[in-house]
Amino acid sequence: MTEDGWSLHPQLENDTVPVGDLALCRVAALNDADYPWLILVPRRTGIIEIADLGGNAAQLMDEISLASRILKGVTGCDKLNIAAIGNIVPQLHVHIVARRTDDPLWPKPVWGVASPRVGNPAAFARFVAEVRDGLGLAAVR
Amino acid sequence: MTEDGWSLHPQLENDTVPVGDLALCRVAALNDADYPWLILVPRRTGIIEIADLGGNAAQLMDEISLASRILKGVTGCDKLNIAAIGNIVPQLHVHIVARRTDDPLWPKPVWGVASPRVGNPAAFARFVAEVRDGLGLAAVR
Repeated sequence: MTEDGWSLHPQLENDTVPVGDLALCRVAALNDADYPWLILVPRRTGIIEIADLGGNAAQLMDEISLASRILKGVTGCDKLNIAAIGNIVPQLHVHIVARRTDDPLWPKPVWGVASPRVGNPAAFARFVAEVRDGLGLAAVR
Repeated sequence: MTEDGWSLHPQLENDTVPVGDLALCRVAALNDADYPWLILVPRRTGIIEIADLGGNAAQLMDEISLASRILKGVTGCDKLNIAAIGNIVPQLHVHIVARRTDDPLWPKPVWGVASPRVGNPAAFARFVAEVRDGLGLAAVR
């Protein structure tokens, strides 16, 4: 359930496409041609740090594990990179990024490096649909 | 409890100082003068991704929350940056890094950027002792 008054931070709204809502998190996807990229955002107001989630932290972890498995299955990636940074967008959001040992930045992390190289829209729509299917979700809106 | 046959990856062993053992994770500290830095390593063999932890994932999240609160309390930092990357060291380890809005890299992430500027050993020992105290732990070894 979405908490009253919660909304996705405008920068995340602008940068991503909604995949759907799990019990706690909005799942969003970033169109990055090199790094298949999901973002999980707990639908709770005023949450900045993971520790602020209290009793909901275990649910966040369940959803990180689930989204990880689906992202790995959809992409066949070699490694997942997962992070909660939030130095620019304070609303707690967790990046789950699929990495390949032959991707452009490997083995460096992807954060803080460059703007994404936007991928083919049809391929991105297919990616979003596959992740949504894997998560058993209906589209948001 | 430490699983039979578990040991800390040699690179983590080399780069960090042990703080102590929580129920699931070895807590280690990296001597970085600019970024107070803890690393949590589940004491389970063969774990690479968070999703590999299965039923232990919730415990990892509890320990991330606990270590976050203690690191924030000890440092008075502005933000925590938390990540599981593992592109170089495959053994699952979670970075918990204290950031200040006036630190050298802010707002960029710290990963993949530069080798740490090693801090004063006495200050680092004090930091380790404060974190250990906060976590209610005895020293490892």
